[in-house]
Amino acid sequence: MSEIKKDFQFLQEAFYLAKKGEGLTSPNPLVGAVITKNNKVIAKGYHRRYGLAHAEVEAIKSAKEDLKGATLYINLEPCCHFGKTGPCVDEVIKSGIKRVVISTADPNPQVKGKSIKKMRRQGIKVDLGLAKKEALKLNEIFFKNMKAKKPFVVAKLAQSLDGKITSSTGISKWITSAESRQVAKTLRDKYDCVLIGANTLKKDNPKLNGLKKIPYKVVLSSELDFPKKAYILRNNLERLIIFTSQKQKIKPNKIPSKAKVFFLKEKNGYFSLDEILKSLYKLGIMSVFVEGGSKTLGYFFQKKKVDKVFFFIAPLVLGGRDAICSIGAKGFSSPGKSASIENIEVKHIGRDFLFTGYPKYR
Amino acid sequence: MSEIKKDFQFLQEAFYLAKKGEGLTSPNPLVGAVITKNNKVIAKGYHRRYGLAHAEVEAIKSAKEDLKGATLYINLEPCCHFGKTGPCVDEVIKSGIKRVVISTADPNPQVKGKSIKKMRRQGIKVDLGLAKKEALKLNEIFFKNMKAKKPFVVAKLAQSLDGKITSSTGISKWITSAESRQVAKTLRDKYDCVLIGANTLKKDNPKLNGLKKIPYKVVLSSELDFPKKAYILRNNLERLIIFTSQKQKIKPNKIPSKAKVFFLKEKNGYFSLDEILKSLYKLGIMSVFVEGGSKTLGYFFQKKKVDKVFFFIAPLVLGGRDAICSIGAKGFSSPGKSASIENIEVKHIGRDFLFTGYPKYR
Repeated sequence: MSEIKKDFQFLQEAFYLAKKGEGLTSPNPLVGAVITKNNKVIAKGYHRRYGLAHAEVEAIKSAKEDLKGATLYINLEPCCHFGKTGPCVDEVIKSGIKRVVISTADPNPQVKGKSIKKMRRQGIKVDLGLAKKEALKLNEIFFKNMKAKKPFVVAKLAQSLDGKITSSTGISKWITSAESRQVAKTLRDKYDCVLIGANTLKKDNPKLNGLKKIPYKVVLSSELDFPKKAYILRNNLERLIIFTSQKQKIKPNKIPSKAKVFFLKEKNGYFSLDEILKSLYKLGIMSVFVEGGSKTLGYFFQKKKVDKVFFFIAPLVLGGRDAICSIGAKGFSSPGKSASIENIEVKHIGRDFLFTGYPKYR
Repeated sequence: MSEIKKDFQFLQEAFYLAKKGEGLTSPNPLVGAVITKNNKVIAKGYHRRYGLAHAEVEAIKSAKEDLKGATLYINLEPCCHFGKTGPCVDEVIKSGIKRVVISTADPNPQVKGKSIKKMRRQGIKVDLGLAKKEALKLNEIFFKNMKAKKPFVVAKLAQSLDGKITSSTGISKWITSAESRQVAKTLRDKYDCVLIGANTLKKDNPKLNGLKKIPYKVVLSSELDFPKKAYILRNNLERLIIFTSQKQKIKPNKIPSKAKVFFLKEKNGYFSLDEILKSLYKLGIMSVFVEGGSKTLGYFFQKKKVDKVFFFIAPLVLGGRDAICSIGAKGFSSPGKSASIENIEVKHIGRDFLFTGYPKYR
C-alpha cells in the first residue's frame, strides 16, 4: 500500500474515534488520535467529553511503548493554549513523536497554525490537509462557531411527499415511521439544544429528549400561553430556555422559575433570530436543532439561518390546500431566490426517505 | 445457461421491442415478439402503432427461415378475435411454431386464455407466467382498462423539496431543472391525453405537447374564462377537450368550435371525476396524464383516481405559508387515511429527483 493510502486509513480511524464524542464535547471540537509505529497502531485516543483529556494526550498517555519515532494521526491541529487542559502541542513534542499527519488546522484564532509551526520548529514533520473535506464536515459545528461566532443551525422536519406536516383537519400523528422517529431522536443527541415554536409546544406537547441525553430545550413563545400539561415545563427545567416578548415582563408568574428567560422585541410577529442565536451562543450553546413547526422553520429559512437540513419524507400524499406545510412563514419570493439544498444525501429509513443537505442561499 | 434463464432473456428482448410502441398503440396493448430456433433469434416484431400488424404476425412474416419447431416469446397472449387485424393465434398455429412462452394471459374478455387453449389443443407447448410482474407493469394502462373499463390515471407534478409549486408571490418558473422538464415532455408521449385545470391554463399558458406527439389536451373549466392568448385554444383544436359547467350551455360563443365539449353538473366547485373519466374512455382515451394544478391534482387524489405518480422534486426550499402546495383541494383527513405511494423508484434527473410510484388508498 502506498504511504498516502496508509495515512488516509489511519486518519479514517482517527475520524471514527472522534465521532464517538459527538454531542458531548461542545464547545470543543471532535478529535480522534491514532499513534503508529512501523505502520502498526500502538495507541489511540479521543476527546470523550468537554472537560476530559484531549484526544492526543489520551493517546500519548495510553501508549505502552516508547513513542520515539512514532507518527500521530489527528483530524485537527493540536491546541497550544491553556483551556480546561494544558496545551497538547507540548505533550506531542515531549513524547518523541517524529511525524504528525493532520487533516485541518485549528480555526480557533488562539491556535490557527501556531501549533503546527511550533512542532515544525522542533523538527517534527507535519503533513497537513489529507482528508480535509471529511475533517471539515466532522467538525462542521465547530468550524461554523469559530468562523461566525454563532451556533450551527440544523432544521429537522418530518413531512409527507407533498410537503405536509399536518392534515387539513389538524392531524399530524404519524406521518413518518417509528424508525424515522427513532433516528430523529438520535439526532437530538448530536446537538446542544432543540428549538421549537409556541404552536408546536401547544399542539404536540413533545418531550424533546434525545436517546442518550437531555438537550437544552428552547421555546419561542410570544404569549407564554403554555399548555398546563406541557412536558418540558414540568421536567428538567434547568435546561429550559424561553424567548418571549418584552410585554411579558410584567407577568413574571407565567414563567417557570428555573427556566432561563429572554425578553425580546417583536416585529410583525417575529423575534430577531440574530438576537436569539447570539443569546444562545453566549450560554455556550454551539448548535441548535430546530424541529418546527412550519412558521418557525419557515422563518429560520427566510432569514437564511439554517446551515444543515434533515428532512424525513414519508411516501404519503396527504393533500389539502389547508393542510399545514412543512416550511411556512413568508417564504422566498421565487424559485430563483429560494434556498438550494446542496450535497444532498438520501437514505432509506424504514419506508421513509431521509434527505440530508446544506442550504445555499441566493 | 439454464433454459429458464434463456427464456427470461428472450422475453426481455420481447419487452424491449414492445416498449418501442409506447404511446402509439392505444387502445391496444404493447406487444413484442421474438422467435428463436436452436436458441438463436430468427425473427422479431412488435406492435408499432394502432391499426398496424400485431407483434407476432410481424415477427412471423419477417422470418426468413422455416418456422417449424421454432419458439415464440411474447409478453401477452396472442389475440383470437377479429379487430383491426385477423386473429394472431391462427397465424401462430399455421406457422409451425412448436412452443410459445407467454408472460401473461390477455385480460381482454374476448381472449382471456382462449388462445392459449386453442394453441395447446393444436399440440403447441405453451409456457405461461414467466416475468409476469414486468409484463403487467409494461401494460399497466391496458390491464387497468380491461379490469376497470376506465382510463389509467397518472399524476405528474414538479415541486420544491418542501412541496411547493408556486412561491407566495405567485412565481413558479422554474422550480425543476431543464432536464426534468424535458423528461416530463417525453412522459406526455406515453399517454393519450394531458389534463389540466382552468387555473393552470390561465397562469402557465402551457403548450402541453410531447416531444414526439401532440396528445389530446383536456381542460376542466367551470367558467370558460380562457385567456385570449391561450396556446391550446389556438392550435390543434381537434385535439382539445373541454369539460365545463352546464350553465355554460347558454354561451356557446365562448367555446372554440372544433373542440369537444362536455357540460357537467358541478358540486362544491368540482365536476364528477367519474363522469370525466367515463367520457374520456368513451372517446377511446385509455390514459390520462394529469399535470395540475394544485386543486386538480388534489381532487384526483382525494377521489382516489390516481393510479401512478411522477413527482419531480427539486432540491429547493421555497417556503411560505401562502405559497401554493403541489396537492391541494380538501386532502385526506389524517396521515393514516392518506394515499401511500408504493413501489417507489427514485431517479436523479439533473439536480432533481424523480419519484415514481403507485398510490394505495386506505
